[in-house]
Amino acid sequence: MLYPELDTPCLVVDLDVAEQNVRRMQAIADKAGVKVRPHTKTHKSAYFARMQLEVGAKGITCAKLGEAEVMAAAGFDDILIAYPLIGPLKLERLVALARRVRRLIISLDSYEVAEALSIAGTALEKPIEVYLEVDTGLHRVGRTPGDDAIAFGRGLDRFPGIRLAGIMSHAGPTWKAASHDEILAFARQEIAMLTEIKDTLGRPDLEVSVGATPTAHLVGETPGVTEVRPGTYIFGDRNLMGLGLAGEADCAVRVLTTVVSHAVPERAVVDAGSKSLAMDPHRDGGHGHVVGRPLVKVAKLSEEHGVLELPEGLTLQVGQRLEIIPNHVCPAINLFDRMYGVRQSRVQCEIPIEGRGKNQ
Amino acid sequence: MLYPELDTPCLVVDLDVAEQNVRRMQAIADKAGVKVRPHTKTHKSAYFARMQLEVGAKGITCAKLGEAEVMAAAGFDDILIAYPLIGPLKLERLVALARRVRRLIISLDSYEVAEALSIAGTALEKPIEVYLEVDTGLHRVGRTPGDDAIAFGRGLDRFPGIRLAGIMSHAGPTWKAASHDEILAFARQEIAMLTEIKDTLGRPDLEVSVGATPTAHLVGETPGVTEVRPGTYIFGDRNLMGLGLAGEADCAVRVLTTVVSHAVPERAVVDAGSKSLAMDPHRDGGHGHVVGRPLVKVAKLSEEHGVLELPEGLTLQVGQRLEIIPNHVCPAINLFDRMYGVRQSRVQCEIPIEGRGKNQ
Repeated sequence: MLYPELDTPCLVVDLDVAEQNVRRMQAIADKAGVKVRPHTKTHKSAYFARMQLEVGAKGITCAKLGEAEVMAAAGFDDILIAYPLIGPLKLERLVALARRVRRLIISLDSYEVAEALSIAGTALEKPIEVYLEVDTGLHRVGRTPGDDAIAFGRGLDRFPGIRLAGIMSHAGPTWKAASHDEILAFARQEIAMLTEIKDTLGRPDLEVSVGATPTAHLVGETPGVTEVRPGTYIFGDRNLMGLGLAGEADCAVRVLTTVVSHAVPERAVVDAGSKSLAMDPHRDGGHGHVVGRPLVKVAKLSEEHGVLELPEGLTLQVGQRLEIIPNHVCPAINLFDRMYGVRQSRVQCEIPIEGRGKNQ
Repeated sequence: MLYPELDTPCLVVDLDVAEQNVRRMQAIADKAGVKVRPHTKTHKSAYFARMQLEVGAKGITCAKLGEAEVMAAAGFDDILIAYPLIGPLKLERLVALARRVRRLIISLDSYEVAEALSIAGTALEKPIEVYLEVDTGLHRVGRTPGDDAIAFGRGLDRFPGIRLAGIMSHAGPTWKAASHDEILAFARQEIAMLTEIKDTLGRPDLEVSVGATPTAHLVGETPGVTEVRPGTYIFGDRNLMGLGLAGEADCAVRVLTTVVSHAVPERAVVDAGSKSLAMDPHRDGGHGHVVGRPLVKVAKLSEEHGVLELPEGLTLQVGQRLEIIPNHVCPAINLFDRMYGVRQSRVQCEIPIEGRGKNQ
């Protein structure tokens, strides 16, 4: 079956393109002598985590405990949960998960989490490994670089049952960068912050683990990093296109959609809305990139409607199929139960998104 | 079990508040002699559709064929699909659905859809009923009011197997209204547009069906309407609060969340991000209303993180629970598999969201 025959809206992934993206990132990291621990929150599926490990990744990253449980059930045994785990219900699940996998790492930025993990780790035979999370500019979670992070790192020694294994950050601000040089400057600053903490703690064994696809692309030019956790690199999206880090042909995932209304000349409506593309904004405005039609703007989304603004003279047909690359591919994937794997336009397989909605 | 003991993030719905909201709207419509056909895309669940029918609704509205199939399977037999259906795969399902239910209505704004429905309706024993959709200002789908809509309505006579049963619109622009008077003025203008079409077509039997909770609230002051299709009224959300149509206590659905990071005084992070609250913007900015804490701003969302800006002097505890009312409740519900039904803070039941993700 050729993929345009699928019913819409649906998610289509070109498996050759995804493999090429995975190989390209792995080659960059291999050349720099850096481990790849891909963030599986992008695809949320065992199928693609397997592809990443087969190409050379050393472990995986998950956003939530529930995602890690899904991956452990699929046989993955070296997992970083890049999220602070809180509360007795989660700690019970954490202990069960730690017994099941070879290696489990949790990120943290508070003594409350350290204390809880300490109780859990003491109950286990092996300590729970932790990464100290540092806020290098995203202003989300993480200790403040310098004295605060260093003092916090020293304070972790008080907690039996946990073992500091690395220092990590998530390179969020790079998504706003205007050029390769800006990304590189940010990455170097970020790594200097992390390295200072590692050096001051006198722990040359600590991983220096950085997130985000844009900086991972440049890991050959940023010595000091020992591990990268890129996510969107596998599929690409309009955000990566905006940074010049992916072209249309590098974007493996598209939402296949149908024109359902064209009642006035300047506007057409497709059946992919925010329930298919997600509502994440893009720095250039708009809600997605229409493949092969750069002048068509995805101007407005409601849940089931994508409103396209058409350039003068262009007419679409009701019933016509289009492909849209989402602004941010990760939340779009979270809206579907499956993707259709395609090679050379032929549907090869249905790929379950086992981690969808696992936000606990 | 008291609901704050539930693991987070999760969706909690106060059943007493939801029932009260349903009764209040039904009373307004009953007094005006208008039918209620609630839009089930808000709750996507048979549980709440049943509540709406028990209180007096005459049928239901669905956003997509997949949602209608879910509701038909649960026994609902009078369904409007407020969406243009296109393509052979959907038409096959439509025929099966039409055989199963007592009454099925489809909205349309193109002859392409009319032709497809005509083929389907001819294959059935009964004609497929259609509502002519009119664009009264949302600029999404719908024919242009006046001559265009009238000519289109006349043109539908050419298609055997379908029967024009109503004229409908969705009162989108009301979400931007600044006052009750603005909503009322818009509603009256909208109804004048629909009534002109009905009168010119000489079809006094046609339903005049209007969408959206804000105008449905005012149906007693807008004669000419015969049917309303409100959605969010059952649960309320921050959008309705912004319009003055719901207070905090009227909002039945909240995302229960936990503080997971508080590394600097002015900022705390909760475990509800865009994968729990959805990313729909609000006219006043921000991503949700923190119950009981109007000075706390939900300033930024990433998928698993909600970043709260705290007023000076306020400190939260890591591990502390908060409740957040989403900007737009419908897409938030689409992110979960179930809601927890609560009465007087006690968890009564798990309510499956059977229509989640049914976007085909």
